[in-house]
Amino acid sequence: MEEVDREAVVDLLGALAYGELTAFERLALDSRFAPTIADKASLAGMAAAEFGHFRRLVDYLRDEIGVEPETAMAPFIAPLNEFHESTSPSDWLEGLVKAYVGDSIAADFYREISAMLDPRTRALVLEVLEDTGHSQFAVDRVRSAIQADPALAGRLALWGRRLVGEALTQAQRVAAERDALIRLVAGSSDNLGEFSRMLGRLTERHTERMGSLGLSA
Amino acid sequence: MEEVDREAVVDLLGALAYGELTAFERLALDSRFAPTIADKASLAGMAAAEFGHFRRLVDYLRDEIGVEPETAMAPFIAPLNEFHESTSPSDWLEGLVKAYVGDSIAADFYREISAMLDPRTRALVLEVLEDTGHSQFAVDRVRSAIQADPALAGRLALWGRRLVGEALTQAQRVAAERDALIRLVAGSSDNLGEFSRMLGRLTERHTERMGSLGLSA
Repeated sequence: MEEVDREAVVDLLGALAYGELTAFERLALDSRFAPTIADKASLAGMAAAEFGHFRRLVDYLRDEIGVEPETAMAPFIAPLNEFHESTSPSDWLEGLVKAYVGDSIAADFYREISAMLDPRTRALVLEVLEDTGHSQFAVDRVRSAIQADPALAGRLALWGRRLVGEALTQAQRVAAERDALIRLVAGSSDNLGEFSRMLGRLTERHTERMGSLGLSA
Repeated sequence: MEEVDREAVVDLLGALAYGELTAFERLALDSRFAPTIADKASLAGMAAAEFGHFRRLVDYLRDEIGVEPETAMAPFIAPLNEFHESTSPSDWLEGLVKAYVGDSIAADFYREISAMLDPRTRALVLEVLEDTGHSQFAVDRVRSAIQADPALAGRLALWGRRLVGEALTQAQRVAAERDALIRLVAGSSDNLGEFSRMLGRLTERHTERMGSLGLSA
């Protein structure tokens, strides 16, 4: 691996690892909103799966790349914490929409990136992003809640826009500070331009997903 | 299995399952106090392990005993929720002491009980209670915090007393309502007497543990 690649891979895996750890924490926290024990258990199961991913990434960083996981995660602590603090769900459905939207945007981003990774890192990233059927749970719950009470759609659509807006804000902030990461994403001199186009594609797919939830994005 | 046994086993496993689910939730919530990412990850790991136990118990209740897990857990929701609400840690060390004390008392209780269970249920209970090395993490952290700042010992000793007091209050409440459970524990006509003696033994072992943490109980 070239040095620039290594730096970018460490960034990617560090961001993904801290993302999984915070996702774990937030899903566990949001499970307090669950209307039934079965729902609580479903959200707790999503959280536990995220923790399993976190552990895989931390092991890979330490054992395969030879970097301290905490060092790799450090640049992403503030952006991810701020994302979560600014998008704290106020009820069960907002928590589900956030889990679904957040997971999906992260998965889209890492799939965009994965072609540029070495085969082993790519295999790890794809493994960690593999949908474990959890997002279907969120989709089903949100859809049927909207069917039962169509007035929810407006509020949840606004919520979806806020989630993606805050995610883009933090992504731009990271982009401004992490050169190697942007070079990996872009692979050309027009770095920030290609990065912006990628964010555009991610936003488009987010819009489609919101539509499939019955929400306008 | 006799009918009284079955009822008691369903109670035991229902209480344990809901205990694991709430332990998951509380540990994940308390991980926000962690002073470092490594500490956060350790507490999250304990939480994820509790969720794994929860899933094993739920599967066993549904597939082996043929009872809806939610039905089995229902009688224990209020006591366990009240226990957690009345013992919400206000910092990292209180969270660790609670994780250690709570896990240990539950393990002692189920080990007392396990001799009276059918072999398959006993194997499951012992598997779920197996220490995964997590409590040593809590012990190490609390001990070295007290060495660094001996004034902590008084506050944490008080906290330990509050934890065990609230646990006993909820255990008495459950005992007053769950006949089959008490008959399983006692195995004699002097039901509540034997139950009280068992609580006495649990409290003694708690006192020894607090001593090994450097705290007076």
